[in-house]
Amino acid sequence: MTAKILDGKKIAQDYQANLQSEVTALQAEGITPNLTVVLVGNDGASLSYVTSKKKAAEKIGMSSDIIRLAEDTSEEDVLTVIRKLNEDPTVHGILVQVPLPQQINETHILEAIAPEKDVDGFNPVNIGRLYAGVETFIPCTPLGIMELLKHADSDLTGQEVAVIGRSHIVGQPVAKLLTDSNATVTLLHSRSRFLKETLKRSDIIISAVGKPGLVTKEDVKPGAVVIDVGNTVVDGRLQGDVLYDDVKEVAGAITPVPGGVGPMTITMVLNNTLIAAQRTKQQRHTKK
Amino acid sequence: MTAKILDGKKIAQDYQANLQSEVTALQAEGITPNLTVVLVGNDGASLSYVTSKKKAAEKIGMSSDIIRLAEDTSEEDVLTVIRKLNEDPTVHGILVQVPLPQQINETHILEAIAPEKDVDGFNPVNIGRLYAGVETFIPCTPLGIMELLKHADSDLTGQEVAVIGRSHIVGQPVAKLLTDSNATVTLLHSRSRFLKETLKRSDIIISAVGKPGLVTKEDVKPGAVVIDVGNTVVDGRLQGDVLYDDVKEVAGAITPVPGGVGPMTITMVLNNTLIAAQRTKQQRHTKK
Repeated sequence: MTAKILDGKKIAQDYQANLQSEVTALQAEGITPNLTVVLVGNDGASLSYVTSKKKAAEKIGMSSDIIRLAEDTSEEDVLTVIRKLNEDPTVHGILVQVPLPQQINETHILEAIAPEKDVDGFNPVNIGRLYAGVETFIPCTPLGIMELLKHADSDLTGQEVAVIGRSHIVGQPVAKLLTDSNATVTLLHSRSRFLKETLKRSDIIISAVGKPGLVTKEDVKPGAVVIDVGNTVVDGRLQGDVLYDDVKEVAGAITPVPGGVGPMTITMVLNNTLIAAQRTKQQRHTKK
Repeated sequence: MTAKILDGKKIAQDYQANLQSEVTALQAEGITPNLTVVLVGNDGASLSYVTSKKKAAEKIGMSSDIIRLAEDTSEEDVLTVIRKLNEDPTVHGILVQVPLPQQINETHILEAIAPEKDVDGFNPVNIGRLYAGVETFIPCTPLGIMELLKHADSDLTGQEVAVIGRSHIVGQPVAKLLTDSNATVTLLHSRSRFLKETLKRSDIIISAVGKPGLVTKEDVKPGAVVIDVGNTVVDGRLQGDVLYDDVKEVAGAITPVPGGVGPMTITMVLNNTLIAAQRTKQQRHTKK
């Protein structure tokens, strides 16, 4: 058996085409969704991420700005920038690229972004709403994974899912979303004693660790769906956690790296920015 | 083998004795921790819960007030009461007893409680901080369970834990706390296909469903720790989810119902109220 390839690039393109029509519709009402990204410092990888987000936004008709601040910007000055963006009605989505320089407390920054513009879903208010079951922005990578799973043709109800990695950016929120979708989730991590056994009995495996070669052919039940969130640069090449060439021989469906989860994450940033812009319209209507 | 009984009543008493000395110390500095509970309506069970919280607080030297509002109080009027309590420096902890009458949106109420007085830990800001790993108030039942587990003499690292029930009040946050403590958690619920098999291989079982007789002797691995969060009234008697008399023959440790998790929950309300009061002291010092 050879796995169905969950082609994130293609799925993202189709998804973005739908977003584009919604952007066009919104523009007809006088609203151009805007995504503004704040980048502190000169890290090359961060600049490249930020630029690709801007390009993706513009490609579907949104406007997008990058605010670049010097490496030694004080926390207070970053907060001032964020407060200004919070109050600017032409800005719908605000992202602050992490990691931030040492003098800046990440929590203070994330808590400062207005929840209704926090398209990453990292403000604790939005994280809390997610867990409390209140409508919110869902973090982009978990949301992208849920979208990919729709293309694996599996009803999630009753499925046994192994999530590897307990970060609050990926592992924990995706476990939460899967549980809400009636899957039974086991959350694995570096201290888990029965990682391999748990993988072997799972219908779906989601690996978000950053350890190339972690998931092998022997770990995967025939027909299982394998989502690889790992992205580690090894000798200049991006590698996932899963031994792709081997595992695709046994899996039922699998995501490649690159071209799997990555494009979906960026797509969900756009998705959340569109929602943020649409909500301002609803508010305008309510206020009339 | 007969299980060690995790006597929540006794453990709670010892814990409260420690709280009492801290309350005394704080009073010597002129601060009497105050817990204020808002009760809307005339539900008998709710009134009884609220009264027992007040008594428990007073017993360890805190002050405690119950604000009773009529069943038909509007949401806006409840919000006004909460805003007043938020601004009252003599009030350290605020609880709003749920369930609330239909005309009141629970989310609006929970989001209105000042995060620094939200000793239940139900304001989304505090839920979000919990998941983001920022210092916060931890919901009382999960916190009480973690305290009980300390008395089961088991290092949680690498332990396989089955949590039954995915509520955002108990199941999900206790899964989060256990994961933080390096346990491997499987979160089970009504749609799980392999509930019994998962229980059978678990080192720790936490059942928070409200279904008497759900966990039987056959489901429990010899020596496993069993925490019963169920509290269902059957023929006027409180019953847990676990067939206690049978299961205690195989378990390594077990909580009774009543007298297990219940007393711990109330104790953690007091614990969080004390922390809230202590934090105001720190703020006073900071402001000097």
